[in-house]
Amino acid sequence: MERRSFLKQTAAGAAALVAASGAALAADEAAKAITADLPTVSWRLTSSFPKSLDTIFGASDVLATALAKITGGKFTLKVFAAGEIVPGLQVLDAIQNGTVEAGHTASYYYFGKNPALAFDCAVPFGLTSRQQTAWMLHGNGMKLMRELFAEYNVVNFMGGNTGVQMGGWFNKEINTVKDLEGLKFRVGGFAGRVLSKLGVVPQQLPGGEIYPALEKGTIDAAEWVGPYDDEKLGFAKIVKNYYTPGWWEAGPQMSFYVNKEQWEKLPDAYKAAWEAACQQAHNDMQAKYDANNPQALANLLQGDVKLRQFNDEIMEACFKATVETYEEESKANPKFKKIYDDWKVFRNNQAQWFSVAEQSYAKFAFAKKL
Amino acid sequence: MERRSFLKQTAAGAAALVAASGAALAADEAAKAITADLPTVSWRLTSSFPKSLDTIFGASDVLATALAKITGGKFTLKVFAAGEIVPGLQVLDAIQNGTVEAGHTASYYYFGKNPALAFDCAVPFGLTSRQQTAWMLHGNGMKLMRELFAEYNVVNFMGGNTGVQMGGWFNKEINTVKDLEGLKFRVGGFAGRVLSKLGVVPQQLPGGEIYPALEKGTIDAAEWVGPYDDEKLGFAKIVKNYYTPGWWEAGPQMSFYVNKEQWEKLPDAYKAAWEAACQQAHNDMQAKYDANNPQALANLLQGDVKLRQFNDEIMEACFKATVETYEEESKANPKFKKIYDDWKVFRNNQAQWFSVAEQSYAKFAFAKKL
Repeated sequence: MERRSFLKQTAAGAAALVAASGAALAADEAAKAITADLPTVSWRLTSSFPKSLDTIFGASDVLATALAKITGGKFTLKVFAAGEIVPGLQVLDAIQNGTVEAGHTASYYYFGKNPALAFDCAVPFGLTSRQQTAWMLHGNGMKLMRELFAEYNVVNFMGGNTGVQMGGWFNKEINTVKDLEGLKFRVGGFAGRVLSKLGVVPQQLPGGEIYPALEKGTIDAAEWVGPYDDEKLGFAKIVKNYYTPGWWEAGPQMSFYVNKEQWEKLPDAYKAAWEAACQQAHNDMQAKYDANNPQALANLLQGDVKLRQFNDEIMEACFKATVETYEEESKANPKFKKIYDDWKVFRNNQAQWFSVAEQSYAKFAFAKKL
Repeated sequence: MERRSFLKQTAAGAAALVAASGAALAADEAAKAITADLPTVSWRLTSSFPKSLDTIFGASDVLATALAKITGGKFTLKVFAAGEIVPGLQVLDAIQNGTVEAGHTASYYYFGKNPALAFDCAVPFGLTSRQQTAWMLHGNGMKLMRELFAEYNVVNFMGGNTGVQMGGWFNKEINTVKDLEGLKFRVGGFAGRVLSKLGVVPQQLPGGEIYPALEKGTIDAAEWVGPYDDEKLGFAKIVKNYYTPGWWEAGPQMSFYVNKEQWEKLPDAYKAAWEAACQQAHNDMQAKYDANNPQALANLLQGDVKLRQFNDEIMEACFKATVETYEEESKANPKFKKIYDDWKVFRNNQAQWFSVAEQSYAKFAFAKKL
């Protein structure tokens, strides 16, 4: 208030001078003045992903490009790949501590801190891509996740989705639940916990270490994403059973994280630009996966790779183990329970509705060639 | 160039004056200077939809709000419902002629001008919501549609989707193709042409006239959108057979249109803001439909309304009639053929890929309650 009042008085005194130099001065002052009104903001963003995964890593570039264009280059984001500033799985800590202003990651990587964080990304037999976006934007998803992320000093935004992932690459056929016993399977947090109930020995390995582990036989199976990314990692050369579906990742949402203090410092216009640019990146990633997966799957199946589907025995056992895990966690973890109770109702309603129009169409039309 | 050089000289001469008044002057000039740098732009947008349809009409409000926030209120959009400036089905003409700067509509309304325009929205047995977005952003969709819309002086942007629509409300059961003969069915352009091959008598009626026509029996059946919108129009009170799926609208995309000259006049920052804000609105509409449809369907089925599915005989006959229609139109219309040839390959590849991970998941998981 005081500063503003001071400015007015001084400006009044300077008015004659401005008039003298005319429009020219006003125009030339524009560059400075815009800086005075909307600050130059240069943020760094640390990604959980390597540059080679152009779909999932690329969402950060889409965000950065949109942001720079919208703000005429005044709000910029320098994007760093996993490991350039912090390792890929330490994005949450880096944003929480303010090491960097922003991050791009999958919230289920932080399952160890609190399994409830996984609702921001994917949980077994959960929401598909569209359903997850619906829960975030028009259910209670964003509100509930923002509450939880506030504990970590983070403001979260939707940052893409992969769609239903593949079930992964297995060195043998999986026909009965017995085939899962002792299976060393590279699979993430929540699914690992569910599958360990069925005898699987879950393995945590970063993307770059999966291929050599499969080749040496130190693991028996590995899941990654879907055809487009899996093709790049070359699994098809050594493992021949490609299973569907990845029931633990029906619609894994990626998220952009922003350090809370940094977020609060932004002018409203930049906040709005950030929101809209995130949604652009959110759309773009899913679209890129959808557009690229068909050709990649065709490539993968050209050799002796067999596309296989988990049978009903396997699916039923996995579903039962999932329900048990949710019940255990809900008893032990009130923060999980709070989100799960809301999410579960939304998920069941979505499943019922999507069985009607979407499924009756898909069953018929996807089997037809024009 | 000349003006810039003049500004520099004058500004240099004025530098001492500025220095004297200090930061105060620069700050106070900010308001003027921003106006000098980025103009105040006030556009009107004419929607094809009534305000009562908050999902589909609401996308324009989402766009307007985001745009105003991003630009600090300098680029504003005043949204008008169908009929306030021009009738709902004349949006394309209004933008083409420059009557208004922007519109929000469904491109298949302009099927009569060229059936190829419908690829921007939906065609029978076409792309689902995600597939349509993928074709637009990472297939050739946007490029091909922009080429076609250029003939109408329009630049098009994605502006929401409804997901697979319902098949509509029928005053009798439809069990065989014979049941379609002579059926007076309120249904849009492309589907009407396909269905007329099977004996249906397609009726074109705006939303507000459907209910009285069904009540008086001047039509036998009507399709609108899906549960959330259909509930508002009250069809369940008079017609009891609610069919799925709306195979002619698997992922109808709404679009924002901008008059080409107006678009070209925008500064780059506003163009980028418009693009991002459109994508935000695009996401938001689909999410709102998905979140609201389950409860609306439950409401509709509380009384004596029966949820019914078109059987295989009906679906096969409709598919066959669709293929014939595409072939006829491709022969007669080179602009249609150009887009159809690209679209068809994309659509077939999508159908194959979505049969794998998405469908194997959906079939199992949507039938399960947590």
